[in-house]
Amino acid sequence: MTGRTQRHRVTRITVAPASRTERPDVLAAEEPLGIRIGGQAVSLTMRTPGDDVDLTAGFLLSEGIVTTAADIVSIRICDGQQCGHEHDPDDDSLGNIADVVLRPGLAVRPELRRGFLTSSACGVCGKSSVEQLHVPGLTDLSADRVTVDATVLASLPDALRAAQRVFDRTGGLHAAGLFTASGELIVAREDVGRHNAVDKVTGWALRSGRLPLAGCVLLVSGRTSFELVQKAALARVPVLAAVSAPSSLAVLLAGRTGMTLAGFVRGGSMNVYTRPDRITGG
Amino acid sequence: MTGRTQRHRVTRITVAPASRTERPDVLAAEEPLGIRIGGQAVSLTMRTPGDDVDLTAGFLLSEGIVTTAADIVSIRICDGQQCGHEHDPDDDSLGNIADVVLRPGLAVRPELRRGFLTSSACGVCGKSSVEQLHVPGLTDLSADRVTVDATVLASLPDALRAAQRVFDRTGGLHAAGLFTASGELIVAREDVGRHNAVDKVTGWALRSGRLPLAGCVLLVSGRTSFELVQKAALARVPVLAAVSAPSSLAVLLAGRTGMTLAGFVRGGSMNVYTRPDRITGG
Repeated sequence: MTGRTQRHRVTRITVAPASRTERPDVLAAEEPLGIRIGGQAVSLTMRTPGDDVDLTAGFLLSEGIVTTAADIVSIRICDGQQCGHEHDPDDDSLGNIADVVLRPGLAVRPELRRGFLTSSACGVCGKSSVEQLHVPGLTDLSADRVTVDATVLASLPDALRAAQRVFDRTGGLHAAGLFTASGELIVAREDVGRHNAVDKVTGWALRSGRLPLAGCVLLVSGRTSFELVQKAALARVPVLAAVSAPSSLAVLLAGRTGMTLAGFVRGGSMNVYTRPDRITGG
Repeated sequence: MTGRTQRHRVTRITVAPASRTERPDVLAAEEPLGIRIGGQAVSLTMRTPGDDVDLTAGFLLSEGIVTTAADIVSIRICDGQQCGHEHDPDDDSLGNIADVVLRPGLAVRPELRRGFLTSSACGVCGKSSVEQLHVPGLTDLSADRVTVDATVLASLPDALRAAQRVFDRTGGLHAAGLFTASGELIVAREDVGRHNAVDKVTGWALRSGRLPLAGCVLLVSGRTSFELVQKAALARVPVLAAVSAPSSLAVLLAGRTGMTLAGFVRGGSMNVYTRPDRITGG
């Protein structure tokens, strides 16, 4: 039930020459993870099972519910029946419910129950321009003086692909990788959802006491949206790189937080949309 | 503010030979669309501006809030200040708020304010297996007797790319295209979010009185998740095809609803995961 892949029988059809064969295939697993805080359901996320404690921690960070590891008393993965019983909190294999206990006194604002994007609507409604969009909890990354060599940055997609355990078999998973400025892989995570892959990385960093992620590079396998820049900014990542294109709002938010945002990092080249001074060489 | 693209100055860096040039670039626009029903905020979606009335209608369909065009009295796109005033409901260029009026008596269940996935959590919590996951509002598509020739299906990705107005310039947009079984394009829509591109298509179909989409093929440019199969099923699409891989839950849900699900439709071949009998030839 909680594997990263599932087997499924598939009919392979080719047009020229015409052929039709049945064969086993491997799918990227997608299953719901319900997140409860203090016994109350706050979210249901479709994710690839695995690293669920990290995913939950990253979700709490991205939603602005926690800011440090000390804010989290425990995260237990269970199957509903078992919730509330004691077991190894690092054992991911138990089910599709994450049961979170926060430190006493940490209030969850009611609007968070509707998800962060909805809660941030109050910063949008009635505004005539997205320029006025307010994103709570973001800090200024401008002062992070890290530099990354362009040759190093260009090499990261291959390093991330090499670290991916599932992608080659299914073609169905996004990846996020955290690297040092000199290109050393710190951690890589996969998921059917891009945002989940990033949450698994930032949640791991939170739980490992590594926040803020000053001097680090986060690479994502796909495109960059507003949401991904927001997640990276909340973890204080100064350099976000992606294999594909960013959206306009991703560039806007990166610019506002002083983050370096690179896109189309592939084939020995890249486009740098904000703070290109952190990329050396080239 | 509501264009599909935005211009941005970019630093293009190449590694070998080393070079660094500044040039203008075109980004896929991403902006928030707040959806209000009866004046009450229910959702904030990051989307590419354009076809916002269709997107809103598709969202209402996907969330199970409406099932026919008659359920919707009006959808007005405005900027907050103008909401409530009369203007052309098909004019998309007015802002980032969609103001929805439903027919009298159509109740919005309170849990929908937290989003569909959260509301469906009650079908997951306490269940030991995703096999028991309950998805409300889905009907059985098994009886749809449409067949699609494999050669026709293999040609659809090129047809969709030809119809895309923005992708070639930005590389940042997903697309969804609705086709007849003989391969004729009915409508194509783009968005930074895959789910939004599909909502724009199904919302268009709802507003055009074309539901159920019996006998039709829906093609998406990326991967297929649970959410996309759910959206297609609520619009009664019997054949869903994608250029990339499906997730395990996408295949499970397609199988349960009697939908044909094809993936990796590229280069003259495809994998068919469910109901391959609807694909002829090959």
